[in-house]
Amino acid sequence: MRIRVVVPSITEEFEALGLEQYSPGARPGTEISVTLLDKGPASIESRYDEVVAVPDIVRKVVQAEDDGVDAVIIDCMADPGLQAAREMVSIPVIGPAETAMHVASMLAHRFSVLTVLDRAVPMFHEHAHRMGVAGSLASVRAVNIPVLELGDTERVVKALVEQSVMAVREDVAHLMVFGCTGMIGLAGEVEKGLVVQGITDVPVIDPGVLAVKFAETLADIGLSHSKRTYPQPPEKEIAGY
Amino acid sequence: MRIRVVVPSITEEFEALGLEQYSPGARPGTEISVTLLDKGPASIESRYDEVVAVPDIVRKVVQAEDDGVDAVIIDCMADPGLQAAREMVSIPVIGPAETAMHVASMLAHRFSVLTVLDRAVPMFHEHAHRMGVAGSLASVRAVNIPVLELGDTERVVKALVEQSVMAVREDVAHLMVFGCTGMIGLAGEVEKGLVVQGITDVPVIDPGVLAVKFAETLADIGLSHSKRTYPQPPEKEIAGY
Amino acid sequence: MRIRVVVPSITEEFEALGLEQYSPGARPGTEISVTLLDKGPASIESRYDEVVAVPDIVRKVVQAEDDGVDAVIIDCMADPGLQAAREMVSIPVIGPAETAMHVASMLAHRFSVLTVLDRAVPMFHEHAHRMGVAGSLASVRAVNIPVLELGDTERVVKALVEQSVMAVREDVAHLMVFGCTGMIGLAGEVEKGLVVQGITDVPVIDPGVLAVKFAETLADIGLSHSKRTYPQPPEKEIAGY
Amino acid sequence: MRIRVVVPSITEEFEALGLEQYSPGARPGTEISVTLLDKGPASIESRYDEVVAVPDIVRKVVQAEDDGVDAVIIDCMADPGLQAAREMVSIPVIGPAETAMHVASMLAHRFSVLTVLDRAVPMFHEHAHRMGVAGSLASVRAVNIPVLELGDTERVVKALVEQSVMAVREDVAHLMVFGCTGMIGLAGEVEKGLVVQGITDVPVIDPGVLAVKFAETLADIGLSHSKRTYPQPPEKEIAGY
Amino acid sequence: MRIRVVVPSITEEFEALGLEQYSPGARPGTEISVTLLDKGPASIESRYDEVVAVPDIVRKVVQAEDDGVDAVIIDCMADPGLQAAREMVSIPVIGPAETAMHVASMLAHRFSVLTVLDRAVPMFHEHAHRMGVAGSLASVRAVNIPVLELGDTERVVKALVEQSVMAVREDVAHLMVFGCTGMIGLAGEVEKGLVVQGITDVPVIDPGVLAVKFAETLADIGLSHSKRTYPQPPEKEIAGY
Amino acid sequence: MRIRVVVPSITEEFEALGLEQYSPGARPGTEISVTLLDKGPASIESRYDEVVAVPDIVRKVVQAEDDGVDAVIIDCMADPGLQAAREMVSIPVIGPAETAMHVASMLAHRFSVLTVLDRAVPMFHEHAHRMGVAGSLASVRAVNIPVLELGDTERVVKALVEQSVMAVREDVAHLMVFGCTGMIGLAGEVEKGLVVQGITDVPVIDPGVLAVKFAETLADIGLSHSKRTYPQPPEKEIAGY
Repeated sequence: MRIRVVVPSITEEFEALGLEQYSPGARPGTEISVTLLDKGPASIESRYDEVVAVPDIVRKVVQAEDDGVDAVIIDCMADPGLQAAREMVSIPVIGPAETAMHVASMLAHRFSVLTVLDRAVPMFHEHAHRMGVAGSLASVRAVNIPVLELGDTERVVKALVEQSVMAVREDVAHLMVFGCTGMIGLAGEVEKGLVVQGITDVPVIDPGVLAVKFAETLADIGLSHSKRTYPQPPEKEIAGY
Repeated sequence: MRIRVVVPSITEEFEALGLEQYSPGARPGTEISVTLLDKGPASIESRYDEVVAVPDIVRKVVQAEDDGVDAVIIDCMADPGLQAAREMVSIPVIGPAETAMHVASMLAHRFSVLTVLDRAVPMFHEHAHRMGVAGSLASVRAVNIPVLELGDTERVVKALVEQSVMAVREDVAHLMVFGCTGMIGLAGEVEKGLVVQGITDVPVIDPGVLAVKFAETLADIGLSHSKRTYPQPPEKEIAGY
Repeated sequence: MRIRVVVPSITEEFEALGLEQYSPGARPGTEISVTLLDKGPASIESRYDEVVAVPDIVRKVVQAEDDGVDAVIIDCMADPGLQAAREMVSIPVIGPAETAMHVASMLAHRFSVLTVLDRAVPMFHEHAHRMGVAGSLASVRAVNIPVLELGDTERVVKALVEQSVMAVREDVAHLMVFGCTGMIGLAGEVEKGLVVQGITDVPVIDPGVLAVKFAETLADIGLSHSKRTYPQPPEKEIAGY
Repeated sequence: MRIRVVVPSITEEFEALGLEQYSPGARPGTEISVTLLDKGPASIESRYDEVVAVPDIVRKVVQAEDDGVDAVIIDCMADPGLQAAREMVSIPVIGPAETAMHVASMLAHRFSVLTVLDRAVPMFHEHAHRMGVAGSLASVRAVNIPVLELGDTERVVKALVEQSVMAVREDVAHLMVFGCTGMIGLAGEVEKGLVVQGITDVPVIDPGVLAVKFAETLADIGLSHSKRTYPQPPEKEIAGY
Repeated sequence: MRIRVVVPSITEEFEALGLEQYSPGARPGTEISVTLLDKGPASIESRYDEVVAVPDIVRKVVQAEDDGVDAVIIDCMADPGLQAAREMVSIPVIGPAETAMHVASMLAHRFSVLTVLDRAVPMFHEHAHRMGVAGSLASVRAVNIPVLELGDTERVVKALVEQSVMAVREDVAHLMVFGCTGMIGLAGEVEKGLVVQGITDVPVIDPGVLAVKFAETLADIGLSHSKRTYPQPPEKEIAGY
Repeated sequence: MRIRVVVPSITEEFEALGLEQYSPGARPGTEISVTLLDKGPASIESRYDEVVAVPDIVRKVVQAEDDGVDAVIIDCMADPGLQAAREMVSIPVIGPAETAMHVASMLAHRFSVLTVLDRAVPMFHEHAHRMGVAGSLASVRAVNIPVLELGDTERVVKALVEQSVMAVREDVAHLMVFGCTGMIGLAGEVEKGLVVQGITDVPVIDPGVLAVKFAETLADIGLSHSKRTYPQPPEKEIAGY
């Protein structure tokens, strides 16, 4: 099976990094490939960043289908371009936020999202409302570290543990969800940090890893989005693309 | 007062047409100007059309603020780019769908939306859910006339009246909302058509006209979106824009 | 255009005061007139106060239509008698709470209401639930100043700023809505007070002023409530009115 | 135990009729008394009718408490004046609609309301939304017989059975609720009519009768509304009452 | 009238205790009988406890109908087996949680539940969501006393008053609901304790007592659950029961 | 990886059948084992059937954890015993309904459930409400074939296609979900049947197959339910188990 990860960024080191981060989640026989954007932002931290990323995200999803891959993951917790991409292709297109928040609501009474910046907080409340899980969202807490500084793993883990402890103690959260796919691979360390704080019963969902498994699942069973919900766009003149 | 209408289309005749259609709604002293996109689609009828329209929509909204206009209307019932545009400017940015659906829920127990194509139906249910007015949305009905054929006014009015009558009789709607800003100016004729059918108590909301009034309102009283909800995006490298 | 403000009070000085407070919000050419109740309470601060105000409110709305005015505003954040008044007339009848809370939910992720007395808190939660914006209501906070003491502007502004700061800091509010039309005209001073506290990105909605603009809007475009939702009451014997 | 039924009407024959209709529902030892309004409408069929009934309804509830009765029922499915009356007294005040719709949602997956006139349909949807049982409301159907003609029992039962059959067959209702307290006493006959149509498993709730039992219940166990939710109104000048 | 209380426990002293506790709530002429389980847990404090209690609960409800009683109460705030029992019988089966939470939402703007153990907290949020009253649930607070230690009345009342005071002060609750039927009979003492703390306007609902009255009500008026919602199970082979 | 399927039935042939039906969904290296109940019903078609199945379901889940399997699937669309089983074990326990309905809401605007008997319809509405996806549930339609007759594949497929066509045409469904795990393996044939009817864009979710993939996913990434939501039950005396 072949899964394509579309990283909505022009930052070159994210290509190798993405491969390194997403591959451990794949099962033997699944081949992960990563593509960056040609046009777009260095990272997605605002609605505007999304806007300038999405046209090329969709182009890269179309390219992925043309390349014969089995499923595509959009590597961002804003799920940017998810609906438009589904209109353009028939293969499964996975939004990590959509996947993680539905699974979180299945595994726990209440969960918290740990995001990068305060400005992203409203977006997760909107996600939860749209998906019907707003009643399960205990809180959204920001570590206040920009996406491009997430490479400082030690600092990030420390901040994630701190916010998780507060989410459990103050917001009565029973499960944590990473709010940025750039935190991929850190769930184990955050769980360890929680144990050190005496919290042994709170799972951490790593949406990037979960997205790989959901991509494998849909490709395995030949299931994809409904083309009645996401029909092919009408043919028309489009300038500049 | 100066209001800029951003028409999310590259179709040249829409500039003069937009001016002609939006100006009657403005009060004396309000100057309407219209701008098209340089890059983007001929019309918006899919999520993909939105995606390729939005970067230039936002650019045009920023340009409008630089030009010193008092408020901006995004001329499309998908409200494309509304959130991103609000991040980039401080002047009011009006989404006709947001405005019309809130007002509809204030004036009637249940309302129906009359859109262009069946494929747009889910979008209006999503709008209604997001805005909290899903319980007031009686139905969404399509006239099945593409945006670029809305110029055939007689055919459009006939279809709008037909669908309105069915919405009233079968879906128990008490008010109609046009589901495409390209239907601007036709509310009076549709209301007349309803009277001919014996329906005298069902108002019709023309979202384009309402958007002009709401733009005037916000500009008049110096009210705009919260910059705490829509903060200026972080500075970063962006390629291709 | 002529707009009638129905002040649901028998307190005589409110007539001149209402005219003074509402007139600045009107555009040139809009004539505001104010009417008090003949029968009813000195102010509305309870459900019982509403009950004894409403029959005369409706009578005054009917009188307004007979006088040929273009729209009516019920000058109270309880929107008392809104539905009954709409049954009796065809001209637009504006509820300041309905208008302000819908607009607040359009302009910000979360908003707080600043009301007079603690006892009014449940009413605003009910308003929000009914309108579908409960998920956007961050909090309702009382300044604990009775309606009839709102004339002490300095004290009122100080209390409004204090509660606004707490709403922003503790309740994560992004926008403020005055919870009593008696606070009309103070939005600018409250915004200034917030800036002094370092809060520069939180707009304040003055429902009285907004109601004037919404009345102008509806009258301008010939839109009113659906008479299918608010049909004329059946003729019947009524004693005592 | 003494229960007072406040009939929100000036129609004199409703006093004896009310006594006759409500008494069978009371248990031995419960004394029912009935009071009409001095001021108000002949019947309640509109929001306006409510408005002109409510001041006297509240006065009659206060009188009932002064008379030492144990609980009060407001004899109308609009539950007119319920909140204001609760502010003025400490004894339980029962709204038949509130009681019946909560109980209906406890006993069946979906229920329908059978009301008098089409114009009352929106009110029951609002009731259901407010009480949180909107998802259980299968439909609201009108028999289209005015309140003052409900004395023609045969015609009323026939119409109630007809609408019930349609509610079961077309709207998938599992339980019926009378939508006017004037239908009191007819549940048994409607159930018989349903059996004749082959429907043996659909209970019918008679809100008037249920209200008597709920009044007895609250009085028996010394439970009433929270005075923190319904505090005594502030003292103030009130003209005309 | 005869009412059967099914105590979902094998703890022998609960039979006499149940009789002692439930009888005062019954009106003259109502005979309460109590039955324990033959198979099942000592108390219900987990989902697993429910599972091992429910088969015998249902058997005891069926036995009650065979014995000719008029209504059955399941003596537990988890309402265990309520739906299955209703499938098997036609007489009313009362869930104390369902009854108490609906009534709480009728009598107060917001209420809190006082339960035994923290682990039960999610269950009450689920109850509230299912019943549509989640918006009225101010909080769920645990006294952290296991069911089998509720006999220490003094300690229990003290803890209930403490948590009630915090619910009123911190969670803005206006009414309390006991979260375990084992707290039956203590409402009066908790109300007294609140008065000592200066809180005179917060009623306390004792779900066990309320359940008796609701059982009497349904039996009195011949109302029961809809057999269209709860049809008799199909005949089939069942092993081990 | 080892996955245990707990078939909540005593019908012996379901053991071999379950193995035959579930194994194709597993990836190479996943070993499926199937266990029946010792005590319980022949099939689950009512709340009562659930009740008598659940104690042994939970025992079988505990046994599975003791046997060292990696995840457990409860083979029934009622998800019977899901919460209690999660209290008793730490390995993932999968409910096919929970999984399928969340995934359905991710892949389509609206979906329909195809269940066995009309009596199961309310249960799926309750599922959808509890999971937050009620707004996406277009309809629940029954093929009216009892569980024990699902072996007649031809008849079942024919009925599933018929109901799917009606769900698409009348209920505006965009995706189908099987409402009984006994329909496992038929998704391909139903999709083919839809194509014959001209419907090419409506996916069919087979919850049994999806459950296997979700079990593999959770086991792969070491994710399970929150033990803070599902803590181990307190030790106590339990008779008869």
